Amino acid sequence: MLATTAIGLSGVTAQAQSDPLPSWNNGAAKQSILTFVSRVTTQGGPDFVPPAERVATFDNDGTLWIEQPMYVQLAFILDRVKALAPQHPEWKTTQPFQAVLEGDLRAIAASGEKGLVELMAVTHAGMTTDEFTKIVSDWLAATRDYRFKQPYTALVYQPMLELLAYLRTNGFKTFIVSGGGIEFMRPWAEKTYGIPPEQVVGSSIKTRFEMRDGRPVLFRLPEIDFIDDKTGKPVGIDSHIGRRPIAAFGNSDGDLEMLQWATMSGGVRLGVIVHHTDAEREYAYDRQSHFGKLDKALDAAAVNKWTVVDMKNDWKRIFPFQ
Amino acid sequence: MLATTAIGLSGVTAQAQSDPLPSWNNGAAKQSILTFVSRVTTQGGPDFVPPAERVATFDNDGTLWIEQPMYVQLAFILDRVKALAPQHPEWKTTQPFQAVLEGDLRAIAASGEKGLVELMAVTHAGMTTDEFTKIVSDWLAATRDYRFKQPYTALVYQPMLELLAYLRTNGFKTFIVSGGGIEFMRPWAEKTYGIPPEQVVGSSIKTRFEMRDGRPVLFRLPEIDFIDDKTGKPVGIDSHIGRRPIAAFGNSDGDLEMLQWATMSGGVRLGVIVHHTDAEREYAYDRQSHFGKLDKALDAAAVNKWTVVDMKNDWKRIFPFQ
Repeated sequence: MLATTAIGLSGVTAQAQSDPLPSWNNGAAKQSILTFVSRVTTQGGPDFVPPAERVATFDNDGTLWIEQPMYVQLAFILDRVKALAPQHPEWKTTQPFQAVLEGDLRAIAASGEKGLVELMAVTHAGMTTDEFTKIVSDWLAATRDYRFKQPYTALVYQPMLELLAYLRTNGFKTFIVSGGGIEFMRPWAEKTYGIPPEQVVGSSIKTRFEMRDGRPVLFRLPEIDFIDDKTGKPVGIDSHIGRRPIAAFGNSDGDLEMLQWATMSGGVRLGVIVHHTDAEREYAYDRQSHFGKLDKALDAAAVNKWTVVDMKNDWKRIFPFQ
Repeated sequence: MLATTAIGLSGVTAQAQSDPLPSWNNGAAKQSILTFVSRVTTQGGPDFVPPAERVATFDNDGTLWIEQPMYVQLAFILDRVKALAPQHPEWKTTQPFQAVLEGDLRAIAASGEKGLVELMAVTHAGMTTDEFTKIVSDWLAATRDYRFKQPYTALVYQPMLELLAYLRTNGFKTFIVSGGGIEFMRPWAEKTYGIPPEQVVGSSIKTRFEMRDGRPVLFRLPEIDFIDDKTGKPVGIDSHIGRRPIAAFGNSDGDLEMLQWATMSGGVRLGVIVHHTDAEREYAYDRQSHFGKLDKALDAAAVNKWTVVDMKNDWKRIFPFQ
């Protein structure tokens, strides 16, 4: 107990000298992170974890970047349908395309999973992986969000960028584990978060290897391969990483099983939930939200002693551009 | 041209000073590797590749370790069936189990893919991922191979261990991309090859997340998830790595598409085929072999100028213990 307190205090001292998390207000959330990192990196200490096992996994939507008023990837889908519509006159009278073209979000939602799969099929499949990467990159470069009039890659959370860098400085390998499309994130995750493609885990559609004009390509098929959400997150972590994380960061019920997987098998572990409480600087939502619903995972946070970040009170800044 | 030759020569000089591949005889194969590494790592040179993009992928069976007289994982399956047989008296009269218990390899082969899936189901599924890791580790520790009386993890190719280390010293990230089971390789790949679990790509079965006695587990299901062989290798590379390798190493037709994917899209690339030509020190096999058949890929090597390693003449040593 004394040793733990001493480690905790040395963490505070180090932080005072040169704060690795300057956009975090001093408080319980920040302290829980500093204390955890101090404990698992203290060589010879009872909680030391070798660098190779310092795996930290981060949800993306709502944890590293914005997910309101809708998932960024959904905004991409809607924009793509509009861009492709001139080649598909039949979409004017066919759901779910008609709903997209008319901006009828209620009708899109009513088209359910079947509708979403149809939208995915025409916007995410039917091209090579290289072509899709270019489509995503071009769209991100050309698009500004609804409220802040910023590129989406600017709507990432400054405190989380500091946290990613802080963990890596302390020997952690940082991974994205998101319900979003793996090939939607990889084109920009390295530049934006410092997370290389091989450390991005996400949902995927199937691809097929082909030779075209003597060159090998991977062609994207309109068929779901894997959904990296809820119970799929531990499955995706096991498949891609093959190690259990010792720290996991999320913000919604989609992250519940990832946090359980990371924190509930012994040892000093860190589970963090980002709670969106700041309607003024970003958005405030939790148990009732369509996107990023945080209900069961908020209850589980209390039971499992996960750290809940109160964005309004714990973060000095939200976005890098502010 | 002059610059390229100069770079090639400087590679030779560096090698003479301290040979990074001491178990390789001087010859065309070794030189092609040294020249390639020199070209892609020469800053300011026309073929320079930034470290983040230096991805090298290695097949495992027959490329990094032995695959004769049968795949190691098949030896594992046969041993596991025998170990589990007392709990399954019906196996004595049920194929393909009867064939395994009677050592009838011909009957096992005759049971085809259906038979193999049944054998996989009882030996690879029905337990948690942690339990399977322990089963594999225990089996490897207790088992010696048929011919050399060595643990299988000792039957890795010394020249390839040197090559892995040499590439990593030059900023490469080394990955296994194998038709073998991903969870069969991960328990020992880090210690044996220096390749961590998150850099192992392989075939997989499905898993399901469950809470058991308040602890999260992943339970292994008797259902194929992904076959990481032939056209599956580029798909697996794209899914797990998300970057195209600039160097790929294989030894059989199962590696053909991986080598195409790595080498046939422009830029200085390295494709290497390990040709098993040494019946005395290891095994000699290619176009007619049941395991590790090398036929189409050998023809493709000539067309695509891939390096073909002649084990008998290019390698001074085969195994570390020799």
